[in-house]
Amino acid sequence: MELETGDKIRVKKNGFIYEGVLMPKLADHIVIKMASGYNVGINPEDSLIELIEKNSISPSDSPKKKDVCKTNKELPQVSIISTGGTISSKIDYRTGAVSSQFSADEILSSIPELEDIAWFSGRVVYNILSENMKPEYWSQLATAVYEEIKKGADGIIIAHGTDTMMYTASALSFMIETPVPIVFVGSQRSADRPSSDNIMNVISAAKVATSEIAEVCVVMHDSISDDKCGIYRASCVRKMHTSRRDAFLNINNTKIGYVNYSNQKIDTISDYNKKGCNALKLNTAIDSKCALLKYYPGAEPNILSYYVDEGYRGIVIEGTGLGHVSTEWVPYIKQVVESGIVVVITSQCLYGRVCDRVYDTGRDLIQAGAIEGKNMLPEVALVKLMCALGQYDERNKVIEFMNTNISGEFSLRSLL
Amino acid sequence: MELETGDKIRVKKNGFIYEGVLMPKLADHIVIKMASGYNVGINPEDSLIELIEKNSISPSDSPKKKDVCKTNKELPQVSIISTGGTISSKIDYRTGAVSSQFSADEILSSIPELEDIAWFSGRVVYNILSENMKPEYWSQLATAVYEEIKKGADGIIIAHGTDTMMYTASALSFMIETPVPIVFVGSQRSADRPSSDNIMNVISAAKVATSEIAEVCVVMHDSISDDKCGIYRASCVRKMHTSRRDAFLNINNTKIGYVNYSNQKIDTISDYNKKGCNALKLNTAIDSKCALLKYYPGAEPNILSYYVDEGYRGIVIEGTGLGHVSTEWVPYIKQVVESGIVVVITSQCLYGRVCDRVYDTGRDLIQAGAIEGKNMLPEVALVKLMCALGQYDERNKVIEFMNTNISGEFSLRSLL
Repeated sequence: MELETGDKIRVKKNGFIYEGVLMPKLADHIVIKMASGYNVGINPEDSLIELIEKNSISPSDSPKKKDVCKTNKELPQVSIISTGGTISSKIDYRTGAVSSQFSADEILSSIPELEDIAWFSGRVVYNILSENMKPEYWSQLATAVYEEIKKGADGIIIAHGTDTMMYTASALSFMIETPVPIVFVGSQRSADRPSSDNIMNVISAAKVATSEIAEVCVVMHDSISDDKCGIYRASCVRKMHTSRRDAFLNINNTKIGYVNYSNQKIDTISDYNKKGCNALKLNTAIDSKCALLKYYPGAEPNILSYYVDEGYRGIVIEGTGLGHVSTEWVPYIKQVVESGIVVVITSQCLYGRVCDRVYDTGRDLIQAGAIEGKNMLPEVALVKLMCALGQYDERNKVIEFMNTNISGEFSLRSLL
Repeated sequence: MELETGDKIRVKKNGFIYEGVLMPKLADHIVIKMASGYNVGINPEDSLIELIEKNSISPSDSPKKKDVCKTNKELPQVSIISTGGTISSKIDYRTGAVSSQFSADEILSSIPELEDIAWFSGRVVYNILSENMKPEYWSQLATAVYEEIKKGADGIIIAHGTDTMMYTASALSFMIETPVPIVFVGSQRSADRPSSDNIMNVISAAKVATSEIAEVCVVMHDSISDDKCGIYRASCVRKMHTSRRDAFLNINNTKIGYVNYSNQKIDTISDYNKKGCNALKLNTAIDSKCALLKYYPGAEPNILSYYVDEGYRGIVIEGTGLGHVSTEWVPYIKQVVESGIVVVITSQCLYGRVCDRVYDTGRDLIQAGAIEGKNMLPEVALVKLMCALGQYDERNKVIEFMNTNISGEFSLRSLL
């Protein structure tokens, strides 16, 4: 039986029954969009799969792959890649299964000021809430960005939900060396709300996408006033508030600068890669068998054996203070390391540098074979370790990658 | 065979052999201090335990239980309870297995200014780095505090390592209703360093312990200058830097005030419980079978089944943004809830309020039976859930406790 995307199928696995429409395959998993709107990923091994209806959705339900907008071709060309999120908030995510209304035309018609900044093409890569992002999607998104730059884009804007923007942005900072700006933008308040930040964020993102700043960055409100947007480095950015518009901050590093909204001028306040300095380069290798594990009093070290049993290759531990876990954990970590898993220590303090050479528990961790995550954010260390394990099999190569500053994710000296 | 603390024993369990000195029992576990200095907690079920040497340590190695210092008895009486940490940094934790040099005499002799503030008694409850704190220890510490207040202390100072101070402080804020100040103090830099913060922090803590502020609080540097210490509410405090002296912040709430170091006056900036308002009350019930689980892209929902299998009763999820996980997680969370586990959703943003009524993934979580953690810190929600599960068996009682503001751990309206 040859199954195709769009077929309605029924899958029996481990006593569960899943029924729905077959979605594009992800890695080794088949993905089913269920009637409830859920996507479920299932490893087809040991599954019983039955076809219920061939081609249950019509081709017109499929997303339009690309829109090119009429506009002034003397301006720079910017490709807007959409992944979903509040910034594309006209969309009903529940029912909008495989269709997407998002297009560059739509953005341009709602924000006419953009026409004076660049000419835009639009591309829909995903249409999901960003909590549904997966490491595999980062690779696909990086490939789409690469293709757009290859085809001549002078800058890229990626519309993305804010929930996991920090993970995706740091992933792209590790996967792509870019000669042009790659700008993530989102919004904390949807377009139907008077306090929506989407117009100002998108216009500011367009200014940065047509600037000399050839880095992967995030452009979002920098204060609760509508006066400026911050230009945040992708490798050390974090969403630090559930709802405020100025939720994003660079941690343990300065931001690149601001876009002043009144005159739409960019003020940079620290170093950045200038346009054309780097040649375009792509490496989308990723291994998502990595865990981010937060330590807390009472955390039982036995959890580490779960990750060993499940075939994980990397664990980032969010320790306390300078990068600690309880002494009881140390022999377990030693066993985990000896089983071949790379263990990286970061701190739940978020700010500051890990230093496992001051106290006994830290020294024990180093001796057990854990490596220090310097002043990397735990989330960024996780993404970087996934990239490292995607690229390398040998432990020492993985550690070398972790200890190399790829995109500003750590600094050698700490800022206060 | 009747084993006693101090006996040297050998334990065989699951193919592992542990040899060392028997320490005081913790809950259902026996604790062995190994030659390496590690403590290992072992459930004696299915273990083979052999006695190697009776009374392997001499009584003089045991900690002195209490020192009372000569001083002016017209001043208020403050009990200093020590648990260890950098603030007691003369101690070699590795070799100092069951001995402790820390006493109120020692603190007083190194900080003579204290004699003008109060008369002090000292009590050593633990002598550990705070990453080795456990939920059971919080109960024992709360009991010690209760006893000291019962005996007439006008205020309590708890010397504690900074790594997990936020967990312990919030635990005590849930366990004790107090008519007098209960002040946690620590230091980020040990006494042998010129930049040590320990003297200023201890003096400021003493000022608060003799003040009208009858709350559980944390007193630590409030800036990188030596000008003032902040008085932070215990129920919403967080260590936000690995090494800076002003690492502690109240999140989603105002601090209580400051101690100005130049004139040693207290300035309060928000409401607090005044001395004598509350009667002394203690409830040390705790169930540590609670997990704090951070969501990230690529996190496999199967981890939830680990906690079900291991008999956990509560899980606090550190979701993204307003309190989200991927749609794939929702059916798993439903199963977890149906198995009787209480699931609380918090946000890895730390700042801001969880609201699972805005987006589909959030609404799905609520429908699956998860409860919103409001604007509680994830770590505090974990501690509170441990307390709730310690006190109650019935799910609705646990949820009622979680939804009740016990000590300022959440607010009804968010501050910006």
